[in-house]
Parts: sequence; structure tokens; C-alpha cells
Amino acid sequence: MARSALGAPQVGRLPSGPLDAITDVAGVALGHVTLSEGAVQTGATVLLPAPGDLFLHKLPAGLAVINGFGKSAGLMQVQELGQIESPIALVSTFAVGTASTALIRDAMAQQPELARSLPTLNPLVFECNDGWLNDARALALQEAHVWQALQAARDAGAGRHFEQGAVGAGRGMSCHGLKGGVGSASRRLVWQGQTFTLGALVLANQGRPEALTVAGQCIGPGLQARIARTEAAGPERGSIIIVLATDAPLDARQLQRVARRSAAGLARTGSDYGHGSGDVALAFSTAYRLPQRADEAMPCVTLLHESALDGFFQAAAEATEQAILHALWAAQPVSGRDGHHRHALTTVAPELLSLPPAAWPAVFSDA
Amino acid sequence: MARSALGAPQVGRLPSGPLDAITDVAGVALGHVTLSEGAVQTGATVLLPAPGDLFLHKLPAGLAVINGFGKSAGLMQVQELGQIESPIALVSTFAVGTASTALIRDAMAQQPELARSLPTLNPLVFECNDGWLNDARALALQEAHVWQALQAARDAGAGRHFEQGAVGAGRGMSCHGLKGGVGSASRRLVWQGQTFTLGALVLANQGRPEALTVAGQCIGPGLQARIARTEAAGPERGSIIIVLATDAPLDARQLQRVARRSAAGLARTGSDYGHGSGDVALAFSTAYRLPQRADEAMPCVTLLHESALDGFFQAAAEATEQAILHALWAAQPVSGRDGHHRHALTTVAPELLSLPPAAWPAVFSDA
Amino acid sequence: MARSALGAPQVGRLPSGPLDAITDVAGVALGHVTLSEGAVQTGATVLLPAPGDLFLHKLPAGLAVINGFGKSAGLMQVQELGQIESPIALVSTFAVGTASTALIRDAMAQQPELARSLPTLNPLVFECNDGWLNDARALALQEAHVWQALQAARDAGAGRHFEQGAVGAGRGMSCHGLKGGVGSASRRLVWQGQTFTLGALVLANQGRPEALTVAGQCIGPGLQARIARTEAAGPERGSIIIVLATDAPLDARQLQRVARRSAAGLARTGSDYGHGSGDVALAFSTAYRLPQRADEAMPCVTLLHESALDGFFQAAAEATEQAILHALWAAQPVSGRDGHHRHALTTVAPELLSLPPAAWPAVFSDA
Amino acid sequence: MARSALGAPQVGRLPSGPLDAITDVAGVALGHVTLSEGAVQTGATVLLPAPGDLFLHKLPAGLAVINGFGKSAGLMQVQELGQIESPIALVSTFAVGTASTALIRDAMAQQPELARSLPTLNPLVFECNDGWLNDARALALQEAHVWQALQAARDAGAGRHFEQGAVGAGRGMSCHGLKGGVGSASRRLVWQGQTFTLGALVLANQGRPEALTVAGQCIGPGLQARIARTEAAGPERGSIIIVLATDAPLDARQLQRVARRSAAGLARTGSDYGHGSGDVALAFSTAYRLPQRADEAMPCVTLLHESALDGFFQAAAEATEQAILHALWAAQPVSGRDGHHRHALTTVAPELLSLPPAAWPAVFSDA
Repeated sequence: MARSALGAPQVGRLPSGPLDAITDVAGVALGHVTLSEGAVQTGATVLLPAPGDLFLHKLPAGLAVINGFGKSAGLMQVQELGQIESPIALVSTFAVGTASTALIRDAMAQQPELARSLPTLNPLVFECNDGWLNDARALALQEAHVWQALQAARDAGAGRHFEQGAVGAGRGMSCHGLKGGVGSASRRLVWQGQTFTLGALVLANQGRPEALTVAGQCIGPGLQARIARTEAAGPERGSIIIVLATDAPLDARQLQRVARRSAAGLARTGSDYGHGSGDVALAFSTAYRLPQRADEAMPCVTLLHESALDGFFQAAAEATEQAILHALWAAQPVSGRDGHHRHALTTVAPELLSLPPAAWPAVFSDA
Repeated sequence: MARSALGAPQVGRLPSGPLDAITDVAGVALGHVTLSEGAVQTGATVLLPAPGDLFLHKLPAGLAVINGFGKSAGLMQVQELGQIESPIALVSTFAVGTASTALIRDAMAQQPELARSLPTLNPLVFECNDGWLNDARALALQEAHVWQALQAARDAGAGRHFEQGAVGAGRGMSCHGLKGGVGSASRRLVWQGQTFTLGALVLANQGRPEALTVAGQCIGPGLQARIARTEAAGPERGSIIIVLATDAPLDARQLQRVARRSAAGLARTGSDYGHGSGDVALAFSTAYRLPQRADEAMPCVTLLHESALDGFFQAAAEATEQAILHALWAAQPVSGRDGHHRHALTTVAPELLSLPPAAWPAVFSDA
Repeated sequence: MARSALGAPQVGRLPSGPLDAITDVAGVALGHVTLSEGAVQTGATVLLPAPGDLFLHKLPAGLAVINGFGKSAGLMQVQELGQIESPIALVSTFAVGTASTALIRDAMAQQPELARSLPTLNPLVFECNDGWLNDARALALQEAHVWQALQAARDAGAGRHFEQGAVGAGRGMSCHGLKGGVGSASRRLVWQGQTFTLGALVLANQGRPEALTVAGQCIGPGLQARIARTEAAGPERGSIIIVLATDAPLDARQLQRVARRSAAGLARTGSDYGHGSGDVALAFSTAYRLPQRADEAMPCVTLLHESALDGFFQAAAEATEQAILHALWAAQPVSGRDGHHRHALTTVAPELLSLPPAAWPAVFSDA
Repeated sequence: MARSALGAPQVGRLPSGPLDAITDVAGVALGHVTLSEGAVQTGATVLLPAPGDLFLHKLPAGLAVINGFGKSAGLMQVQELGQIESPIALVSTFAVGTASTALIRDAMAQQPELARSLPTLNPLVFECNDGWLNDARALALQEAHVWQALQAARDAGAGRHFEQGAVGAGRGMSCHGLKGGVGSASRRLVWQGQTFTLGALVLANQGRPEALTVAGQCIGPGLQARIARTEAAGPERGSIIIVLATDAPLDARQLQRVARRSAAGLARTGSDYGHGSGDVALAFSTAYRLPQRADEAMPCVTLLHESALDGFFQAAAEATEQAILHALWAAQPVSGRDGHHRHALTTVAPELLSLPPAAWPAVFSDA
């Protein structure tokens, strides 16, 4: 089995883009801010879906609530209007309010008519609960941190490699009892002679330890036996956020269908979308823009035929699964509040790097 | 036609409770904080749905998104779990983040295990855009203001009369081109010998001037002719938030059905649920509590038969319509940013108080 | 107040099209078959949404389930794909299966590759329960009847006047305790210099007797007092089907938003969307077609700006309300099974034709 | 890896019930009718969810539309009311109308007040398209066949073993390019000392040949190489129906959450919920009944705590995956219309029976 650049098994059958990351979709940029000091192990990751003024020229988008036990902000309006109009911030659960306000202030600075002659902004903020490693009650993330991550994304610019694992919003996240965090991947597909890219970004904080499955092999039980646990085994909770980007001309309804397929990739890593896990997927397209002002011309759009979606469904499932593996493969170990510690997958099980998946069951069986 | 205590026509056929307000539902309390200084005309209204610790003992609830152009927070989890677990804050759009954080800090103060051994809180914050009167860009509302409204609700206690109109979150709201804001009403109904109460609270910021309809009479055009307008006539936007409470044993699915019927009452005041109007209704029951902890006994609940819902549907429609009228009837005129001013219905059209509705068409025709 | 061609009050503020019927939307045709013999008082109404092969060239469509207590067929696929691909049949509840099969056989006759190299058809069949007048247990409607209605629509052709009231599927329907059935209306609106038409077709079988409201006047109680009732007063049940057509370039998501606004018009006639009333609205656009075959070119579509929807929302609400009034105004009295009889509104209350609405409260008060 | 009674790998970690079938849930019975003559290769499978009169005493139920490209009947009312009130029929797509009418006639025979003093019935009919093997255009299935399957279920009684694979509605179904059809499985779980059962029934007609994955091993490519194909490789279409039953006291909202988890099991067999695949899951509980008549006492129900759902989520995912494997393992080869033929998995790849899954990749690699 082939390996991705990060050393994880290459899952699925579609090829990756050159970065194997969401930034393979033209125009997408990303920045992190990481807070790591003692019990504070958290951060923010901001994704810029496209260049230019997102409020004045919005992007089509669709949402899939896989399991709605979560506190992400801005979702109702995406479902109603099928549009996004702000950068996308990923943060810790209790930081959603602060990040929302930070995005609003950033938008006001750029757009003096916001909440004047123009409507208000719908800030898009997704969250997972990093409270096992991070002192979530400290509410450490400030508006300035969010602006810092936003600036980092702007400074980086589109089409760039970015750090994954225990960085940004991923700093305090856990995944299947191991260190999780930010992961990304991309897939390419051809429809009627045209090549399209679909990229995934995940904030991976989900999964029961014993259920972790990689490339079809359930290695969770064997892995867990190697870790001296400081917490009781528990149910699946903690959440995963999935953001999908594509350069294909799809509309909101089609993007909503694409977003739903991330659930297939998630299931293949061992998740049953646990009761306490807020699993949400957003898909957007960069292929055309929707003007805020009614006096601007609406674009004439030739959407892809509905049957083209099969390729995007496969890409969404594969890129999501791959991005979760990347979050695990990239994550460094982190120690946080009250002596809590999360091991990194690749240090706990270095054989995953050297042995082919078919050899894993023998090593990681739970017998 | 009978008149309500506020002097508005008594709409519908069901009787009101003694307060004709949402606080007729046992256990419901409400507090305001009002900010009124120059261009800052805003505030917060906090509703306590029931006594005791809402996080440890939640209430069944259902949601209806009538038109999802809005930024209210906490809705996804209500839809998934059918429960509410926090006080309900109503604020200006850009204050949602601040109010969410304020509710989180209040819950942390009461519950030291939140985000530790217990999960995080889902703060419930609803919003309308008061930016025509209020300088929304000033982000004037602080966390302390939300706590003040919360404390006001706790101090008032359940079952009390409360101020309506241009107070609390209603301070800067507009309704059909007039001064809107907070309104409330209640209805009583009998099912199989038992009397139940349903109460409505609205934050009324919706409606086109020419569409205002009261007790079946479209008086909007006549009313508008009396006002020297400072703004251009525009489409329907601005939003309405509707909170329904009942003491009847209904479950989340049934409450979701009840919440949807508030749209009927809203339509009768002249709204078509305009594109830019975020119209959201939440219904909750105080009849039983759902424990946070799995080791606490679940209640044995005898729900009402589904066919009992017809009475609650009628009550939801009537109480919503009545609450909107109360918001208009109670509202005092307000001047705000940049010389913007909203007239009060009852000063613009005092005949509404003295003449019966059947006589209004002659007075308020748009000929 | 102006009167429509059928003598009903002209509700709302937008002008009607020349027919004031759904056939004002170019390309829409309609046919009835009526079964009226003793206890059998039923029928079928078939609407052809557009000329040509609907399966090969589908129409964008959106659905609103106002109250899902109903058995209409084909809805799930409309919600997923945002398309319709068959004629629309309206029938009695127990005839849904027969009508579905009839539409399938008609499509097979036209398209030999259906269920071969082509997929299967999604037949769209809506229903209300006419069992109070009609002997629904007789399952009187046969496939041949549906084909007859289909042929009637094809023979009539687009753009034609058609009969309303107690005809076709409306034969056995009741509305607010009176004779209901088929009703239709249309509205015209201008957006950025272009005129668009929105038409409504209803199968009106809903409403409690005492709640009937016409042009804002609740005349139900007064009307009921004139009828020697043969049935007990009951809750709201029986259902209403609402089909909206427009020639404006809207997509499925936008059409779904438009469909939802029919609930506002319905509410204004006195409905609270009763528990037992299956209230469903479908909206489709004739402005462009979506090819079945992936090797056909997809259309380049310039949708209307989202803020254009306000006009369509108003048109949907007004046309729905007007269509319900037309069903009542056009309906002739019908006697059916077991001595059951429904009076016609205009014979029970001829004053409605001669007196202006403002004079009705005095006549139809329930005192 | 353990094997199920049918010889398939035992997937997941929860134990099966004694029959490893949906009939492990007390009260559930099932009957088939199979039509197999030349080009007619179809049938009907009827599931009786519980003993007694389902219309008078309904069951709580929830629905998950995984991909709504399908024509199943009765879904809207299940979503609104959270109840089922009829036997569940599984048939070929074009037989939905006939089966609906057959269920209605059966209910009328038992209940003379149906569509008289009682409302109408909501017949529940699910479908997949068996048109590749079966001459779907022949509409071979008659009402009498459905009654025959219904009678077979009644004669068999609850708690019985039943045939799987190419029988009943499964006769003409294909799965991943092989013979599919009816499959079933069950899982047991313990919550707070009580043991509960969850059973799954699938009508498996989904999946692309190259994507078939069993116990984590993607064996599709290797399998396909062994088959001389008579059809072109195509996209994922054909659909899967999933019915879940449990004896646990869950309500409609909880059952809807459980139903959604069948998507995780489906994903693990290689499905991305393809565009053309109508994937629908229904979950019902037999733990309590909901009376049709408002004058009957409503049950006092102690629901399971929401956090108990994790076990049911896992059971739903595992039982669905296992049931799909059972459909493939049990299916006999079938020849149908126009020389079309579907091979059986176990005859094409007998090594699957003798070799452990870890050895499959070497045999079924696509190199």
C-alpha cells in the first residue's frame, strides 16, 4: 500500500493533489495560532476559503450535521441561504463566542457599511471540546489570537503547505485516546475531461480508543494496551469538524450532498458518530461567487450534472478518512492540565510506519 | 372585540392566563437590562425557563426555523437532543458571541465540573438586528450586562409581570416600520379535563410597514402615511424571535410541532417570513426534567396524546400573534443613531385604542 | 375591496395574471376526471408542469412539509435532488398507489428505456382524504381514470382556463366544514424590470368550521350557525395540497423557500396547520430544464438574486390564500356516502357576494 | 476472526442474538413471496414489527434518509409523527403503488372503521430497483403476492429463522456487481444491567463492484477480475433499505439517531452512498405502544438516558454491516431478463469461506 507524504497509508483509489491538503484547492489559505503554556493547550485555526471580500462576494456552501451535539456558530444561515460569507474559524468549545466576535470585528474593519446599509455578518466558527488536555475553563483564547491566526492565513497566502497535528485549534484535541488535532488531505478526479480538486480539513477530536481503524485494520485495542491510561475508558465524544473545499461548479444543494459523504470516511476510521461527538461537515465551492448587492450581476453558472457527484462523493469520503489519518500521523505528544497527557500515534506504534497494513492485525490484535 | 390588558385587541378564541404573558407558565422568570444612551439603544433580555440547575436537569424542547437568515446560537444541539440546558438570552446580532460567553461563565460559576468531568454548556442566545436605531458596530453590550439581566430574572422570580416594548433586547428593535421590541402573551386550554398554559415571548423586529395587520385588518398603509419617514421603504428584514413555554407534558418532537405553529400567528400580523428576516421559534416544556447524569433515574413520563396538539397549535398561533401586538402596543418611541427615530404605534394611531377593529379600515385605508 | 373573477375578495397587493390561475405560468396544463355516482364522490386532477418529456428534461423544484401527516408519494426524491420528472397527480388518499402506478405506466409507454438503460420514474402523487363525502374504502379510482385526467390535461394544452371547486380530485373534499376542492390563483411581480408570474393550485380539504377567515374576517362561527350539521365538530384535519409554479429562474433551494411561504397564506384563512391535516407545498420553476442524460449539456443559468425572493414570497402567500378562497367560491354542494352533504359557501352565505368584507363581521359574528 | 452462522466474518465487537437476525427482537415476524420465472425475478418481503393491531397501537419509529434518490412510500408521516402503523413491505421500485394498495386493503379488512370514523392508513413500502435482473417493466408483482408475503409472515410468527439472499424482495437485487438481496443480523448490548437487542434487515442492492469491502478488506477489484461481465461498470446505484428493530424503550427522536448510524455500517462495506442509490433506514422500538384513540390511556414510558444511545449506535452500525454481508453470503446466483446473470459471492470466491480475512488482500489484490 502506498504512503502519503506524512507517512500514513494512502487510503482510497483517487489520487491526491500535490500538497495532499485542502490548500490544493486554488485560493484556499490557512493560518494557526497555538497557545501552549502549562494547563493552557489550545489555539485557533482560520481558513480563508477564497481571496477577496467574502461578504460582498460569497461562496456557495452546504452543510451536513452528522451528529448535532455541538456548539458551532453560523450553521442555520448556511442551511437557509447556501452561502458562506466569512473566514472559517476552528476553536475550542468555550471560545466560539470570542471567535465569533473577533470575526465580526475583522469584517467591520474591512467593511464600514456592515450593520449600516449592509446587513450583519454571519461568522462561521466550528468547535471541538479540548477540555481533557486544555484548561477550557480558563477561556484563554482572546480575540487577538483569532486575528493572529487570521493574519497568519493572509500572510501565508493560498496554495501553501501548512502544519498539521497538535497545532492551532488542534493543540488540545484528542482522537481515539491519542493525540489528535488538525489534519488535511486532497483528492483529484476527472469528469468529462476536466480535472477537479476536493480538499478536506479536519479538526479531529473524536473516537473511542478501542475502535481506531486505519486502512481497514482495527488497531485500537492493540494500541491502547501500550498506553498507561490516566483516564477511564469512555464513550465516543469530543467531536470532529470537517471542512471540504472544491473548485468544481456545484450549488448549495449539491455541496450539501457532498458534505454528507464525509460521514463515510469518518466511519471507516472507526467512528459510529457517538452520542457525545459533535460531527459537522461543511462543503464549499470556489468556482463562482454570489454577490451581496442585488444591483451586481448574478453569475451565469453551468453546474456539473448531478451524476458527476459520484466522483465527489468518493473524494469526500477518501479525503476525510485521509485527513483524519494525517491528524493522527502528524500529531506530537502533548501534556496539559492536571497531568493529562496524550501520546502520539507514531511514537506509541512506530511499526505503523515500517510494516504494511496487512501485517498490523498480527501486531495489534487485542488477544 | 375584547381588549387585552395592554389595550390591544384580544385575538383568537382561547382565554389568556392571568398575566397574559409567558410568566403565566409556572416557573418561568424574566429579566431585562436596557442600554439607552445616544446612539447606543440596545440591551439584553434573559428568560429563565425553570427553577433549579438547568444543566443537571434539562427541559425538553423543540425548534422551528421559519426563516433561517439569522445568527442565533445553540440551535443545532437543541435540534439533535431535544433539550435545553441554559437560560435563554435575547440580544442584538453582534452581541451573540458576548452573550454566549457570559452564559458560559455564569454556568461555570455554578457548576465547577463543567468542561471537567461534565461536558460543556450549550448556551442559547437568540438575536435580531437592531442596527437601524442602535449603533450595532459599537458592540456596546458587555458580559456584565448579560449577567445583570440574568440577575434581574433571578431577583424577579417566577410568575411575575414584566415590562414589554422598548426594553431589554427590545430597546432598539423595529416592527413594521414602527417601534417594536419585547412582547408576550399566554393562552389556556383544556385537554381531557386538565388545564394547560402556553406562553409566548417575542422579540419583534420584523415586518414591512405597509403589511402590518392587526386583528385581520391591514392598517399598515394608513399608518405609514402618518409618519414622516427618515428611511427608504425596504423589504421585510430584521427578524423575530419567538419563545414558547408550556406546562404540558410534551416531548421534543411534539414541541417542535408546536413551535412551527407560531408561523401561523406571525403570518396573521402581515409577515411573509421575508428573505432577510431571521424568524426562529423555540418551544419548551416545564412538565418534566431530563437528568444530565446517566446514573440518575429517568422520569416516567405520560405524554399527551398526539391529537391533544391541536389545542396547543391554536394556542401557539394565538399567543404569538398576541405577543407581537403587545410588543407594538407597549413600545415607547425611541431615537437612536444618526437621527433615526421610531414612532410608537399607539401615539401614531391613537384611534386603535378607541375604535373597534371593524372601524379601522375606513380610517387606515391606503386610498 | 376588489373581487376576483370568481367573485371572491381579491386578497393581497400584487396583481393577478389574466386567468388568475396556475395556468398563467406559461406551459402549465391541467386536466380533471370526476367520479360522481352515489357514495363515490372522488376524482383525479393532473397537472402537467411543462411541455415535452419531463423525465429527460426535468424541472427544478422545492418542497415544504408544513405538516407531514399525509401519504403523498415521491417527496423524498424531490427533497434530495431538487427536481421533478413526472406529471403531478392529485387524488384521494387511498388512490395514491393506483395513481403512482398509472403515472409509471404512462411514462413507460413514452419512454421504452425506463427501468432499462434509464433509471426508474419518481411519480409525484399528492393526496387529501375525501372520506367524509366519498366512500374511500371503495377504492373507486382506477388507473384508467388517472390516464383520462392526464389526457384531459394534454388535450387542453397549456395556458387554459380550467374548472375549480368540486371537480377532479376536489370532488369529495371539504374545507372548513363546507364544500372545498380545487382552487387556483396567480400573482405577477416585477424584479429589476422583468415581470414574472407565480401560480398556485390547491386541493383544499382543510380547516375547522369555526376558524374560516376570509380577507381577514373570521366568518366561520356565523356561517356554521346556518348549517344543520350532520357531523360532530372536530379538529382540523383533512389536509391541503399546494402546488406553486413560476417562470422565474430559481433553483431548488430558492423554490423550497418559496414553497414554505404558502404556509403564510394558509394561516390567513384560519388554519393552524392542524395535527391531522397533511399540509404540503411544492414549488417548481419552468425557466430552465435539467437533462437526465449526463452527456447532454447542462444549462447555463443566471438565477435571480436571493433578495428577489421577497416578491415571490409575497406572491406565494397571496396566491395560496386566493386559491383557497377560489376553491370555496367555486365549489358546488355535494352529497355523498351515508347521507353526508357539504354545503357550498356561496349558497349558505350569499351576502359574501354582495356585501364588502368590512360589513361581514356584523352579519357573521358568533354572538 | 469469528464467523457468523452463515459463514460470513463476524464484524464488530458486540455479540449477536441467537438467530443473528432481526427476528431476535421479540415480536418481529417476516415472510417472503418470490417470483422467479424467466425475465420475472422479483418478489416481496413483509416484516411485521409487532403482534396485534398496529393501527390501533402504533410503534415509535425514526427515519434516516442517507441518500434520498428513492421512491419509498410513507416516509413523510413517519418523520412528522414518529410512529409506524402498518406492516413494512419491501418490493421492487415499480411495485410500490401496488404494495401500498395491498397494505391498505389488508388493513381495511381488519379494521372496518378505517377511512370512516378512523383516519386512513399510512402504508410503509420500501423499494430498490431490481431492473437489471428483473423485467421491472412487466409490473409482475400483484396485490395478491403482497398478501401472500403478509400471510407468510403471520403464519411464521415471531422469533423465527427466515431465508436470506435471493428471496422475496431480494430475488432480483444486485450488490457490488454480485447477487445481493435480503440480509439480516442482530446485536445484543447491556445498559445499566439490562440486556437489549437490536436487529437489522437489509434489502441490499447497492455498491460499485470495485469497492466491495468485507471486514475491512477491499476485495472488490480481485473479485471482479473473476467475473466475465455482461454489463458495463457503472456508478453506485440501486439502493439499500435498512430496517432496524429494538426492544429498548427509545422515542422517535432517539430512534432517528439510531437509524442514522446504519450509514456507518454501510460505509464500511465500501459504499459512499452513491448519487443513484436510494439509501434509507428506519428504526422502530417494540418496547411500548402508542394508542390511536385519544380516549385510551397513554403509556407511562421511562426512556433510556440519551447516553445509552452509544451502545445502540454501535449495534446499528455493526448489525447493518453484518446484514449486508449476510445478504451477499446467503445469495444464490440468479439469471434474469435479457441474459443478465448475477454470480453469488461464495461461488465466485470460495476462499472467503476458508481463508481468514487477513489472508484475503494477497488473494484479492487488484494488482
